[in-house]
Amino acid sequence: MPKKKKSIEEKTLWPDAARMLDKAEKDGVETAWDRLEQQTPHCKFCQTGLTCRNCTMGPCQIRKNAPLGVCGADADVIVARNFGRFVAGGSAGHSDHGRDCIEALHSVALGKSTDYSIKDEAKLLRIARELGIAVEGKGVSEVALELSDLFFADFGSRQHEVSFLVRVPEKRKKLWNELGITPRGVDREIAEMMHRTHMGCDNDAPNLMLHSARTCLADGWAGSMIATEISDILFGTPKPGKSKVNLGVIQEDMVNILVHGHNPIVSEKVLEAVNDPEMISLAREKGAKGINLAGLCCTGNELMMRQGIPLAGNHLMTELAIVTGAVELIVVDYQCIMPSLVTAGNCYHTKMVTTADKARFTGAEHVPFDMHNASHQARKLVQTAVEGFSRRDSSRVEIPQGPMEMITGFSNEAILEALGGTPGPLIEAIKAGKIRGAAAIVGCNNPKYRQDYGNVNLAKELIKRDILVLVTGCVTSAVGKAGLLMPEAADEAGAGLHEICKALGVPPVLHMGSCVDNARILQLAGILANELGVDISDLPLAGSSPEWYSEKAAAIGTYCVASGIFTHLGHPPNITGSETVTNLALSGLESLVGASFGIEPDPFKAAEMIDERITSKRKGLGLS
Amino acid sequence: MPKKKKSIEEKTLWPDAARMLDKAEKDGVETAWDRLEQQTPHCKFCQTGLTCRNCTMGPCQIRKNAPLGVCGADADVIVARNFGRFVAGGSAGHSDHGRDCIEALHSVALGKSTDYSIKDEAKLLRIARELGIAVEGKGVSEVALELSDLFFADFGSRQHEVSFLVRVPEKRKKLWNELGITPRGVDREIAEMMHRTHMGCDNDAPNLMLHSARTCLADGWAGSMIATEISDILFGTPKPGKSKVNLGVIQEDMVNILVHGHNPIVSEKVLEAVNDPEMISLAREKGAKGINLAGLCCTGNELMMRQGIPLAGNHLMTELAIVTGAVELIVVDYQCIMPSLVTAGNCYHTKMVTTADKARFTGAEHVPFDMHNASHQARKLVQTAVEGFSRRDSSRVEIPQGPMEMITGFSNEAILEALGGTPGPLIEAIKAGKIRGAAAIVGCNNPKYRQDYGNVNLAKELIKRDILVLVTGCVTSAVGKAGLLMPEAADEAGAGLHEICKALGVPPVLHMGSCVDNARILQLAGILANELGVDISDLPLAGSSPEWYSEKAAAIGTYCVASGIFTHLGHPPNITGSETVTNLALSGLESLVGASFGIEPDPFKAAEMIDERITSKRKGLGLS
Repeated sequence: MPKKKKSIEEKTLWPDAARMLDKAEKDGVETAWDRLEQQTPHCKFCQTGLTCRNCTMGPCQIRKNAPLGVCGADADVIVARNFGRFVAGGSAGHSDHGRDCIEALHSVALGKSTDYSIKDEAKLLRIARELGIAVEGKGVSEVALELSDLFFADFGSRQHEVSFLVRVPEKRKKLWNELGITPRGVDREIAEMMHRTHMGCDNDAPNLMLHSARTCLADGWAGSMIATEISDILFGTPKPGKSKVNLGVIQEDMVNILVHGHNPIVSEKVLEAVNDPEMISLAREKGAKGINLAGLCCTGNELMMRQGIPLAGNHLMTELAIVTGAVELIVVDYQCIMPSLVTAGNCYHTKMVTTADKARFTGAEHVPFDMHNASHQARKLVQTAVEGFSRRDSSRVEIPQGPMEMITGFSNEAILEALGGTPGPLIEAIKAGKIRGAAAIVGCNNPKYRQDYGNVNLAKELIKRDILVLVTGCVTSAVGKAGLLMPEAADEAGAGLHEICKALGVPPVLHMGSCVDNARILQLAGILANELGVDISDLPLAGSSPEWYSEKAAAIGTYCVASGIFTHLGHPPNITGSETVTNLALSGLESLVGASFGIEPDPFKAAEMIDERITSKRKGLGLS
Repeated sequence: MPKKKKSIEEKTLWPDAARMLDKAEKDGVETAWDRLEQQTPHCKFCQTGLTCRNCTMGPCQIRKNAPLGVCGADADVIVARNFGRFVAGGSAGHSDHGRDCIEALHSVALGKSTDYSIKDEAKLLRIARELGIAVEGKGVSEVALELSDLFFADFGSRQHEVSFLVRVPEKRKKLWNELGITPRGVDREIAEMMHRTHMGCDNDAPNLMLHSARTCLADGWAGSMIATEISDILFGTPKPGKSKVNLGVIQEDMVNILVHGHNPIVSEKVLEAVNDPEMISLAREKGAKGINLAGLCCTGNELMMRQGIPLAGNHLMTELAIVTGAVELIVVDYQCIMPSLVTAGNCYHTKMVTTADKARFTGAEHVPFDMHNASHQARKLVQTAVEGFSRRDSSRVEIPQGPMEMITGFSNEAILEALGGTPGPLIEAIKAGKIRGAAAIVGCNNPKYRQDYGNVNLAKELIKRDILVLVTGCVTSAVGKAGLLMPEAADEAGAGLHEICKALGVPPVLHMGSCVDNARILQLAGILANELGVDISDLPLAGSSPEWYSEKAAAIGTYCVASGIFTHLGHPPNITGSETVTNLALSGLESLVGASFGIEPDPFKAAEMIDERITSKRKGLGLS
């Protein structure tokens, strides 16, 4: 049977994407959708987790007539090992990003970097105090140094638990201790996961799954949380503010620079250089009206929530942004940057520049950033972009118009401020059933789905049911483009949520940041649970990643579940080859950690699933 | 074409293995060779490194009509990413073992553990001094505490280089700095490897390969080296001594306990319990003549080289040892323990007990060991074994006879002592061409080869050519069974090596320990290079792993090459799907780090390859 080619309509929910997909075809630019077609059908063994390549007695595939690997590992062990390495990859991504933040804070504290500084001193002091550092009589640098020392230790082998476990309800901490999954150190858990999955180490699927949970908890409550908190300290804690989203943020008459990746350390400096009057006049000399900076993916989220910089789009928009033909430069740091961007850029005049030594791309120019050269390198890059403007072929430029407005930047600090300083009003609203619960919709795009169909429809369905929606990462662009990040969207919400949103002047869907910022959601869950004197698993909360693709999303899902939050996924990770592992994920974890995963590709059915969960949790709390 | 079943003769070089393979078939015990038959042919994509499962846009397979993954990653990137995770697994194994050793030393230093103590105070002080710790006027515990602090830091994020780089020649350190591959911290490099291999991070194959090198250098010069040095401090530095090898070390009239895995922390305690008079009389009460302890794999190497405990065999002998029907108990720690041992044990009366929380086996009994209960748990286990003796079915017992004698335990300290305290005589022998060079033969068994055919024949060929052979790990059992670890084997060596061996009374093949003890070989290379004022890559040295299977072996090979030592492998890792990566491994690394890999399944041709290398290195040093 010949493969059925998907129509553009089936590929995406969005007019801007549709137009660029059409142009890409004309321009001969290959996209992720094309490559997915070539890669379909996928290998059944890999897709179900039943291949093992962890030694060279194999590779092995578990089949009816070969039920064991050469070493004797069965389907359960192989699937659990593969899943362990998968989430170790995700946890390592977030956490190594966190490590870079610690190094930045440390460098600033020592006065070694003049390119960066502490923007939110109050937050620095607050976090230090929260973590038991005496701050009285100490200078900012001294506190920053002690805090960075503590965070470095969270990545080491000597802690019995990572520092931010102070935010975890006691009941949950006790449970983790009993299960032996209290995260001790970020790198340690990752390295131990890699050790356990070597041939002949951990050969018990449930034991492997527990260590997966521990590894991911180290991500959520340390690696990611440290990344979030230090980014706020260095670049400012996000406050609600206006921004714009979709490819229409690219400007025909300006030099366009896109920043892509995850860590604000590079993009904040690019922003500074873009605003440099010298650079602007240089751009004008070249015939442009100025320099336009827009974000993609999580780097986009970081810049948007703190600086209001517009968002060109999410994961599947990254290639399509280049297809506009109007992008002079794309500056990337790391994670989720499709290597195809180099090729796409070469189809136009778009230059791709890498900035991290740990994330180079064959064919891209490498301009390494560090703590001491960042401002200088950023200016160099912006200059390159400006010079590229004259190479733009205007006959090949086509930019979808009409970006959507949105309010972003709901850090926990901002949420609490909106509530008058305490979580009390939110808890009252939950008790009264005006807000029946909250669901975090997070993660990615995946070309296996119609782009953003699940992300948007799930959000719409949930707010209708008076469930407050929190979003991060690539879901931001989805709900932003759907208008759900504007206060007016309260009109699409149920009566209770509508009332609260109107009273507070906030949208029914709150943007909480980038993917590492899911740690903000963990923190909020901890605050609510502590306020109510219950465990996180008792709260009417849920997580969801309808269109995920990344190992980081699997890590996020796992730390949510291990923290007691039921998590919906649009499709399972590659674990279905093992009944033991699948059952554990879908139900067995419930009795261990008080939450599990739910799998459902249809966003309307997923909303039902989440609603049921929230209803049962409300019931458990004695709420109607 | 129907698969051709291998004859027993084709499966192994050894009579003891052959007899047990025959018995296994009769007893209905499945072995690794059977499962390899079921798993053959292997998936071509996995075997050449061309499958990617690092996100759920895939899994992807690189084919002619699908030359890129969904993200756009090509064969080079996918292969390099897979190799990076493969060696990260190996490095994590060795290094997490090293971490356990640090925790033990730390616990002893704090007086928290009475089950362990410092056996080699002189070595503790020597290592501390070497690493810049002032020891004068300090007690042993204080020094041990400072040393464990330093080693913990080597696993963290704050060092610019790991401590044992003091052993690396300056030229090599400079080279690593220039390439950006100086290992900073053990866990850090592993976590960064996992980060880099996430979708959209490092998409440049050579850059990924360089970080693989860095990760493995952190293993060799820190994780493994720390494991080795602390094991010596806690359990004594190995000295040459007699031991025995093959399945004949299992005793028909005694309670037989096998220890298997890698870390001596558990097995040393089991040995103490076995020697306990109370336990021995208990065994006698049950009708046994006593309690017999024998080792397998690297745990076997550890006990053998320090305590003279006999070695039952290497990797592919582990199942066959159980097939004797005379093993009451097999106690395992971690790594290279085939999960099939549980099933094999169930075919007899053999109980399998796991001891590490990070290495549980479904179906095995778990008796967790820690610093505070080890002696107690060990006694409990030995008692269990004794009680199992009465369940032995003597009609199913068949033990091959006639173990081989061997001399083991050539630590660097022992080698230097044999040389009169300095490496001078060894260097003179090399200069004079009596010893033309040295080759380390290390690693595993793999059922794809006739067991030990490559290990033994390569060793024999090299000593004939006056090349001193150093062995560790599973190669020990191979050369031991071949009689090459006895001084008499000097008669099989070339005239020059024969003369030296006779003069010193040593065998032409020196046993240097377990797999982590390949760090001893690195150290020796550093000593020789420093003595001659050259780089390691200038020395007439080579490494080889003819029958490797494990990710750890790939990590060892990589740190050897990155340290400047040409390394032969019997078969390539799963990298042949990328010409770029393959060429880099086979030749490109030469210009970067002064060494590369050579692939050759035939041990006679491999000997030729190594000989050529040594000849050219001698020439480079101006030696004939």
